[in-house]
Amino acid sequence: MFITFEGGEGSGKSVQSKLLYDFLIEEGYGVLLTREPGGTPLAEDVRRIVLTGEPEKMSTLTETLLYLAARADHWSSVIKPALDANKIVICDRFHDSTLVYQGMCKGVAEDFLNAALREISGGRKPDRTYLLDIAPQIGITRAFSRKNNETRFENMDMAFHEQVRAGFLKLAAAEPERFLTLDGSQPVETVQEKIKQDITAVLARGR
Amino acid sequence: MFITFEGGEGSGKSVQSKLLYDFLIEEGYGVLLTREPGGTPLAEDVRRIVLTGEPEKMSTLTETLLYLAARADHWSSVIKPALDANKIVICDRFHDSTLVYQGMCKGVAEDFLNAALREISGGRKPDRTYLLDIAPQIGITRAFSRKNNETRFENMDMAFHEQVRAGFLKLAAAEPERFLTLDGSQPVETVQEKIKQDITAVLARGR
Repeated sequence: MFITFEGGEGSGKSVQSKLLYDFLIEEGYGVLLTREPGGTPLAEDVRRIVLTGEPEKMSTLTETLLYLAARADHWSSVIKPALDANKIVICDRFHDSTLVYQGMCKGVAEDFLNAALREISGGRKPDRTYLLDIAPQIGITRAFSRKNNETRFENMDMAFHEQVRAGFLKLAAAEPERFLTLDGSQPVETVQEKIKQDITAVLARGR
Repeated sequence: MFITFEGGEGSGKSVQSKLLYDFLIEEGYGVLLTREPGGTPLAEDVRRIVLTGEPEKMSTLTETLLYLAARADHWSSVIKPALDANKIVICDRFHDSTLVYQGMCKGVAEDFLNAALREISGGRKPDRTYLLDIAPQIGITRAFSRKNNETRFENMDMAFHEQVRAGFLKLAAAEPERFLTLDGSQPVETVQEKIKQDITAVLARGR
């Protein structure tokens, strides 16, 4: 089973994916927790190039192809082997983020992005995607309060973050069987509880 | 005008592209000479990652997407601005190399590669492509006699190089108006003379 977390900055993806990992490990499952962009040495190099680069010097398409290269490496050397070994894979951001940020918000053709995913994963999508939806004002404040140097996304204006939010909600509406949308402004424990209940039901169904 | 040189290892692409550059500069044209993979700081970084990496650790698709990212950067920050400024651009390897090495020889879907080129250059192809055709036995011997550490391509077996040669010839046969195929085993001066005559005719036609 392949599970992803999606959502804007400060929506709680990293925290919730780690809590889900801990829960599933406790339940006795073999689980791999990973993230994008990143997840392999090559992909982390690419992440560094893109996130620390000066946005105005790199075209959106260059950035997109670097992310896709990182995803190809991540898929073939980490995600696919774990899925083949019957592990549950939890990934913090995946292709939906590319569709929203590089596609809907920055104009790279959706057709091309989906063609790339077909090459990368044979078109395999996550079995379950948790969308943590949050008002950008709240999410960005949270993200800023964390100490990190990856300020690239945060540098963008609020209208952009609103567009990101709308983009994720649109993807979720188009695939209601795959997505579960949760209110990311709720307390961590409340969101966690809903995810636990959902994954328990999903896993029971899958057997 | 956008001119490319294509062909296998040791076919004389770098030498001939430099000689053509010198000729056109002498003729009074504004000319840019560049190469792929490479041509920008980001693309040179990518070139280094791919050429010095261990082939077995990187999937063909990852390698391909990295080359495409490098091409997107090279196109938008170097080639396109030069073409827009009415310069003649001479590029040592371009998309045809990707179609042959990553597509025909290593199995990445041609449709996907062409879709990527449409995103990168709006589908613009070279106006003239000089294919330097040479028997791999001769080309590889030449390439080995040069001192360089970029041994990646050279490490492949002879059957692979035969496949590369056949791939380029197939592309040239499909677009006879764009390609001029030359015997790369001829003396440098002979090949150079034919290219001079051809480009003179092409430029006269273009006015």
